[in-house]
Amino acid sequence: MASNIVSARNLDFLLNEWLKVEALTDRERFQDFSKADFDGLLELCEQVATDHFATHFRKSDEQEPTFDGTRVTLIPEIGEALKVFAEMDGFALQADHEFGGMQLPSTVGTAAATWFTAANIGTACYSFLTQANASLLAAHGDDHIKDTFVRPMLQGRWFGTMAMSEPHAGTSLGDVITRAVPDDYGTYRIFGSKMWISGGDHEIAENIVHLVLAKLPDAPAGTRGISLFVVPKFLVNEDGGLGERNDVVLSSINHKLGSRGTVNTAPVFGDGAYTPGGMAGAVGYLVGEPHKGLKYMFHMMNAARLAVGTAATGTASAAYLKSLEYARTRPQGRSVTDGDQSTPQVNIIEHTDVRRMLLAQKAYVEGALGLTLYCARLLDDEATLEGDAAREASQVLGVLTPIVKSWPSQWGQESTSLAIQVLGGAGYTRDYDIEQHWRDQRLNPIHEGTHGVQALDLLGRKILMDGGAGLMALAGRIEQTINRATLAGGDLAEYAAQLKVQLDRLGEVTFGLVSLGDPEKMMANATVYLEAAGHLVVAWIWLEQLIVAGINEGNFYNGKRQAGRYFFATELPKIGPMMDLIAAGDLTSYEMQDAWF
Amino acid sequence: MASNIVSARNLDFLLNEWLKVEALTDRERFQDFSKADFDGLLELCEQVATDHFATHFRKSDEQEPTFDGTRVTLIPEIGEALKVFAEMDGFALQADHEFGGMQLPSTVGTAAATWFTAANIGTACYSFLTQANASLLAAHGDDHIKDTFVRPMLQGRWFGTMAMSEPHAGTSLGDVITRAVPDDYGTYRIFGSKMWISGGDHEIAENIVHLVLAKLPDAPAGTRGISLFVVPKFLVNEDGGLGERNDVVLSSINHKLGSRGTVNTAPVFGDGAYTPGGMAGAVGYLVGEPHKGLKYMFHMMNAARLAVGTAATGTASAAYLKSLEYARTRPQGRSVTDGDQSTPQVNIIEHTDVRRMLLAQKAYVEGALGLTLYCARLLDDEATLEGDAAREASQVLGVLTPIVKSWPSQWGQESTSLAIQVLGGAGYTRDYDIEQHWRDQRLNPIHEGTHGVQALDLLGRKILMDGGAGLMALAGRIEQTINRATLAGGDLAEYAAQLKVQLDRLGEVTFGLVSLGDPEKMMANATVYLEAAGHLVVAWIWLEQLIVAGINEGNFYNGKRQAGRYFFATELPKIGPMMDLIAAGDLTSYEMQDAWF
Repeated sequence: MASNIVSARNLDFLLNEWLKVEALTDRERFQDFSKADFDGLLELCEQVATDHFATHFRKSDEQEPTFDGTRVTLIPEIGEALKVFAEMDGFALQADHEFGGMQLPSTVGTAAATWFTAANIGTACYSFLTQANASLLAAHGDDHIKDTFVRPMLQGRWFGTMAMSEPHAGTSLGDVITRAVPDDYGTYRIFGSKMWISGGDHEIAENIVHLVLAKLPDAPAGTRGISLFVVPKFLVNEDGGLGERNDVVLSSINHKLGSRGTVNTAPVFGDGAYTPGGMAGAVGYLVGEPHKGLKYMFHMMNAARLAVGTAATGTASAAYLKSLEYARTRPQGRSVTDGDQSTPQVNIIEHTDVRRMLLAQKAYVEGALGLTLYCARLLDDEATLEGDAAREASQVLGVLTPIVKSWPSQWGQESTSLAIQVLGGAGYTRDYDIEQHWRDQRLNPIHEGTHGVQALDLLGRKILMDGGAGLMALAGRIEQTINRATLAGGDLAEYAAQLKVQLDRLGEVTFGLVSLGDPEKMMANATVYLEAAGHLVVAWIWLEQLIVAGINEGNFYNGKRQAGRYFFATELPKIGPMMDLIAAGDLTSYEMQDAWF
Repeated sequence: MASNIVSARNLDFLLNEWLKVEALTDRERFQDFSKADFDGLLELCEQVATDHFATHFRKSDEQEPTFDGTRVTLIPEIGEALKVFAEMDGFALQADHEFGGMQLPSTVGTAAATWFTAANIGTACYSFLTQANASLLAAHGDDHIKDTFVRPMLQGRWFGTMAMSEPHAGTSLGDVITRAVPDDYGTYRIFGSKMWISGGDHEIAENIVHLVLAKLPDAPAGTRGISLFVVPKFLVNEDGGLGERNDVVLSSINHKLGSRGTVNTAPVFGDGAYTPGGMAGAVGYLVGEPHKGLKYMFHMMNAARLAVGTAATGTASAAYLKSLEYARTRPQGRSVTDGDQSTPQVNIIEHTDVRRMLLAQKAYVEGALGLTLYCARLLDDEATLEGDAAREASQVLGVLTPIVKSWPSQWGQESTSLAIQVLGGAGYTRDYDIEQHWRDQRLNPIHEGTHGVQALDLLGRKILMDGGAGLMALAGRIEQTINRATLAGGDLAEYAAQLKVQLDRLGEVTFGLVSLGDPEKMMANATVYLEAAGHLVVAWIWLEQLIVAGINEGNFYNGKRQAGRYFFATELPKIGPMMDLIAAGDLTSYEMQDAWF
């Protein structure tokens, strides 16, 4: 029976028919793999996600984490699922052989992650944070840090966090005031409060490895004065065993509207709850050089933002397939033209408007999944190609990163909302999973940089970088797709023509904005720009898929073509008015004044 | 201090500067009122809503209704608030003097209701259901029913429900199978199960008056065979006192994702829990004639759908003003051009993108509120004008009803989501009200006819009625507004030109659809049509407001003009692609097949 959280058939299409992941096994880093390995791994992921993650999806929401002032309690199923995940080497999938990792391509790793995000994002989140943490330390930590912290995290014995935000400074990291004071032993003592820290405390791992942004005494003001420290919950003995308790405790946990399985915390460092080594302060280890903490964090950003896009995609995928299951089995009403009310009711999928809501979800989910896998492929290319090819992949990825973070988050929300609507009143009850997916989803446009921050990143940074090289490289790729679709003729050529018009317009409005010479006005509609660019990019991803689907026969390809047709008929045209707004230099929001509200 | 749930200044603008409600006091039905009465009543509503409804908003969500198999328990604050509401004659505001009502114009009544929906929709809902029930019985019940049931409901001592849906037939009322069997006493015995019944049982009223759709033994199949019955929880003695328990009990209550204060139930009639008068079945009284139940229900529909639009508007209003309050007091970050990170952080309302999110909410909320009050004014005109004028008002109201139900519901959802986004991580916690408003809001596109059902009503019924007279009457009103705005010149003339283009297009695509001669294809994009028509109508409502705002000076009028500018720059253009899709006769969803998903 087909899964009701992810379409394995569609994953196979994207990975093999479209992205041809088997070709990656020609590269040195991935040479130990075969296509059969990839297939086998994804089957295992489906099984573990279904049998160990999806099973406590509702329970982890209904029984959210509790904090008694000292201890965080999670339902046991979360720890058990992550143990199974560790046993399948889930934490080490993409890590280097050097650290015991499997060196799986990101493309396949992202497909694997999709299963777990779809099954239970609240539980899966612990593993993503841990993998991201380990990956950062593997890249930027010194030998002591690497030897001590990386391997236990990749084994899933210790978990990791990213402790960046503070109560007074969520997004504005330049305003971090957590202090790091050097002691006499080459380590540091950390003092300060953090906020919104996922997985900040619990008892499902032996140790918790916090990555903490803090300022050294001589730090310059703002973002250029932030350093990065490893602060473990338990200090580590020379033999790798756990030592004394470090001075990091929670002041409270946050009570969220969704994604509840992931405990979200407000940790306090160096407040005196413990005095490791008889001294005040939480013991921290500097990562890399002083004042470069944000740079190291930003090295993780592409992968972290892709992970959010993957979470949003998986969540939307599960809600879509669950609403599809309902629509196929729930009788209600008759066709518009059937006046005979003595006939039996039809399943609601027979109603055009229900199919519209399902088709929209399919278009969002498969567009988003195509985008996340494409970006993962760029991560692989960046890591394993050389010279210009690697540079070009990196530039394209830079431009796509705010989009792969924001687009699945925004439209994944619309998608899960449509899933509720398919069920009607039933969708509004907690008897069905879908409302939880809808609540879980609402986090994605907020964490790892809000929607608005992604817009600033795209238009204020990525578009301007290297003289616009990223946007030009992306446009070059899109042009290539347009050319192939044009040659193919038929519907594909029509879609290509539609896309070409919008691509040219994007170029024009971008040039217009950059030429303004006024950063405030240039950025006034940054979010509209992000959303227009996002829809254009996903239309391109759809055109790529449609070229591969070609004129192949069968239900799967018919569905693929119909969802693509939906995207070009209903979605791509939405960006016309957005482009108009930007082109007109609209300043409505910019000129609005506080007192006028 | 200004309220953080509704802008009293804006209500005053809409009621007095725009709709000139004082003029209604010239009409016989409203002759006992003065403007001072209206103003005083709205001040009282603000006070009662703020002091008695808003105060338990969170608590009614955190401690949702419980059912122990026999008894429903609500938090006591719900009953207490409704008692205060009863004491201010809240249940009787719009009812006829004949029944002890105040005969308040709907226009003012809808403004009054906005306060309670904004304060606490879960609690307010009990009163709306009761008023709707009493209003239906006052119009269609015989003398016994009127004497027995109407007055106690208008006094707020007894509450009412609408028991239409059944477990196997939510939307499809033609498939109702609840039976009504005549007994020997001129009454009926009711047998059957209902579903999704708000307020179906509780102990905060002395009695509960169910309006139940059921079928008589000789009933034709489908919607033409449905009769309407009054089924009280307690039978009523001749002296009006409560008698024997009737055979209506709950099988369960539903656990919703929001609007939790309103208990939602699955009642069972005539299952033998009680045997009133020693006989099987719940005692019911036929309302009006046999088989005409749906017609009576439909007579309530305009008011009921306006009530949902009002609930959606109030909910969005509260979320908007609460997010505005936060944005004005939360420091975070600096301007795009301020590179000096040693300066203090600014309040987030200083960021253009935050103002964009607030301005969008203002545009949605004030557009929706204008629309609900305008429709209420049409209800007043329908009731108190005569001849052609009454008929014209009725026709316009018919076309606007699916829009006043669906538009505030759809865009109120977007609006509350933007309110969450303004708060960022804080908005995702249950420490703030906004996430609850967002969850409460999600019900509105579902109950009282789903979004898709509104689309079928608009395009399949209302547009076709009387040879298109409703749409033509509406277009006539919009043309008048366009002419006035054109004469005014400046921005108003530009907005008018924009609106004129879209109005003409709506006429064209409507003609095209009707000319298809194929109901299935005509209705294939009914929802897109509904959404396009909705945005056009709200643009018109905005243009009306902008004409009144004119060139008046001051913060309020500046804000009004800026929000209107936002609507015409960002929102109205969204309908271009929708009109294109309909004009092209797109059949993507229609042609999608079950097996292709």
